[in-house]
This record gives sequence, structure tokens and C-alpha cells, in this order.
Amino acid sequence: MDFSSKLLKNAVQEIALLPGIGKRTALRLALHLLKQPEENTQMLSKALTELREGVIFCEMCHNLSDQAICEICSNPKRDKKTLCVVEDISDVMAIENTGQFQGVYHVLGGIISPMEGIGPKDLNINTLVEKVKNSEVDEVVFALSATMEADTTNFYIYKLMSPYNIKTTTIARGIPVGDELDYTDEVTLGRSILARIPFEASITKS
Amino acid sequence: MDFSSKLLKNAVQEIALLPGIGKRTALRLALHLLKQPEENTQMLSKALTELREGVIFCEMCHNLSDQAICEICSNPKRDKKTLCVVEDISDVMAIENTGQFQGVYHVLGGIISPMEGIGPKDLNINTLVEKVKNSEVDEVVFALSATMEADTTNFYIYKLMSPYNIKTTTIARGIPVGDELDYTDEVTLGRSILARIPFEASITKS
Repeated sequence: MDFSSKLLKNAVQEIALLPGIGKRTALRLALHLLKQPEENTQMLSKALTELREGVIFCEMCHNLSDQAICEICSNPKRDKKTLCVVEDISDVMAIENTGQFQGVYHVLGGIISPMEGIGPKDLNINTLVEKVKNSEVDEVVFALSATMEADTTNFYIYKLMSPYNIKTTTIARGIPVGDELDYTDEVTLGRSILARIPFEASITKS
Repeated sequence: MDFSSKLLKNAVQEIALLPGIGKRTALRLALHLLKQPEENTQMLSKALTELREGVIFCEMCHNLSDQAICEICSNPKRDKKTLCVVEDISDVMAIENTGQFQGVYHVLGGIISPMEGIGPKDLNINTLVEKVKNSEVDEVVFALSATMEADTTNFYIYKLMSPYNIKTTTIARGIPVGDELDYTDEVTLGRSILARIPFEASITKS
């Protein structure tokens, strides 16, 4: 692209570094900002800098937080003995939105992915094992995605925790609520048959 | 959404103000920035602020520029007598990328759109008429989009310029190069028949 302004070129290049945003979209966003009052750009840019500089991670669960201990971990009503292991901060939000989980979280900060050069040392696995070792928890609930990498990560952590004889569970894989059976893929359907549960349990759970 | 951090909430809200970016995408972008080195966010935010504060509009054509007169208007090789009227800065880039236009531009900064509250006074129409009045140009080429609003704007400017007896042209509407005839909509096909040109001209032009 042929830019008439170096400032514009620079801004477009920076915006296009964001995931899922190409050069054309970046240009559209930059031109949009130019049409808006100057305050809008200042507020956006201030919000981004403040977020990056000011945000801290909860010392307990590694979730994003404004204080040293996040709101969930410092809430006396939450069951500290049930620990839900998730990949990312957005997963905490997703589970919180369901309103079905009363325990606390442990955010790994990613999953083991040799393709992207992410090994176990890049994740918050040590602190998780430490919690289990010190018998701070009764149950570890794995709530990672249903992908190959997530399964590997699950298994890796499971192996690390096995000496401590702790109850580990994983969230149910199966047919999504509202889905029709004949549109479900074979693997999911197969797993959902293997992982069948007593009918009474399905009534109380829903 | 339930945010564990006010800084994150604020950043997501600001990002979601951008066109075509919803709250979910905004959250994804914010979390992406948090995973990246702090410099990346600083550079993005600096580029945005510098763009908004530093960019100026060319005094001649109202295109984005780093100097008072943009590179195109100050280029002695460009034909100053042929003026191409476009809606926006991105249109200048699009036409420049074709390499087919050797004249100069006039950026309106939008089109007349009563729905969005944009009237003729919000656009750079006066300076355009001024140029025509002072006989600075021989030909005005309208290169606006093929929408209803753009046609209205075209016609409004055409009327304003009519007393000065200037040559006005508009870029050709027709079948896009590479398109098949039976997939072209009726209006475009109809127009392309009405606006047929001598076959010799089509050879020299392509």
C-alpha cells in the first residue's frame, strides 16, 4: 500500500500486528480514529497503556487482578478446596458467567504446545503442584479445551499430581445442549456414549 | 461479562468502540496485548497518539500528509489540471495503487448522507468549487462509489460547477474485469450497455 503519511503507515503497521487484523482493517481503524475527536484516540491509547502497565496477576490463581489477591480468591464464600484449572483468563470469565462453579481457579496462562514453543516451564504448573503438595485442595477440576494440546497438558499435570493422591476430575465432553444427535461428529458422540452418566444425575445437574 | 480487573474492563470498552470490533474481539485483543512484551503496547499506543496529533491534511487536496502540501500535490510530474474527486483518503490509495492516474486529487472527506447527518457543509466542497472557479483545472473526474448517496453527492457538486463550464467525467461503471456476464446484476449490466464505448478505445485502455 502507498501511504501519503509516515505517521499513518506506522499506525497501520502497529494495528496490523494485532491478531486477526489485516492491513486493510488496520487502515480502516486508523482512518476511523482520524475522523473521531482527538480525545477518543487519547482515551483508547491511555486505556491500553494503563492496562499493560497497571494490571497484576493474582498471587493465588494467576488471574488478572487490580489487587495482589483477586476478587474470587479473596471471596470468603468461595470453596478454596475445589480448584478449577483453566488455560486462560477468558476461560475464568466464561465459567464465572455460567454461575455454576463455587470453587476457585488456577490459570495456567496457556497450554503445552511444542509447535508454538510453549513448554511446561512457561506455564503456571509449578504453583499448581505446590498447592496440591501442601494439601491445600481436595479436588482439581480440569477445564481445558477439548483439543489435542489441551489433552496433553491435562495428562502432563495429572502425572505430576499423581503421587499426591488427589481427586482429579475433568469437565464433561459430550453433546452440546440444544444440539441434534445426527449433526454431532462421531468422536464427540462416541465419547458421550463412553462417558454416559446415571440418568438421575443428569436431572439434578441441569 | 464479568471482569476481574477494572483496567481490563476499561481497555475492552475502549477497543470495542472501534468499528467492527465487538466486546469478545476486544477482550481477545486486550488479552493478546497482555501476553506480549510491554513495548508492543507502548508502541501501538504511541503510534495511535502520534497519528492523531501529528497528522495534517494537505492544503491543496485534503489528503493525509506529513507536510502542508502532500507528496502528490507537490510532485511536478503530476498533471495539476486533472482533478480526481474522491470520498476518502483510502480511495486515493486505491487509485494510486492502480498506477493509472497521473493527475491530482481532491478528497471530500465523506459523502452527503442525511441519514448520518452529513450535509454539504461538512465536506470539502467549497474549496473544490473555488479551484474550478479560478480555472485551476481543465477536467474534474468524479471517482465516488456507485451508491445512491455518492450519486447524490456527484450531482450536487456537478450542479455547483455547471456555471463554470468545465469538463466533468466520471469513472466507468460496468462489468468488473474477470467477472462472468451471467453473474452480473441487472443494473450493472444495463448500465454497461448504455455506457458502451468504441471497441478500439477498450483495447488502448486495457
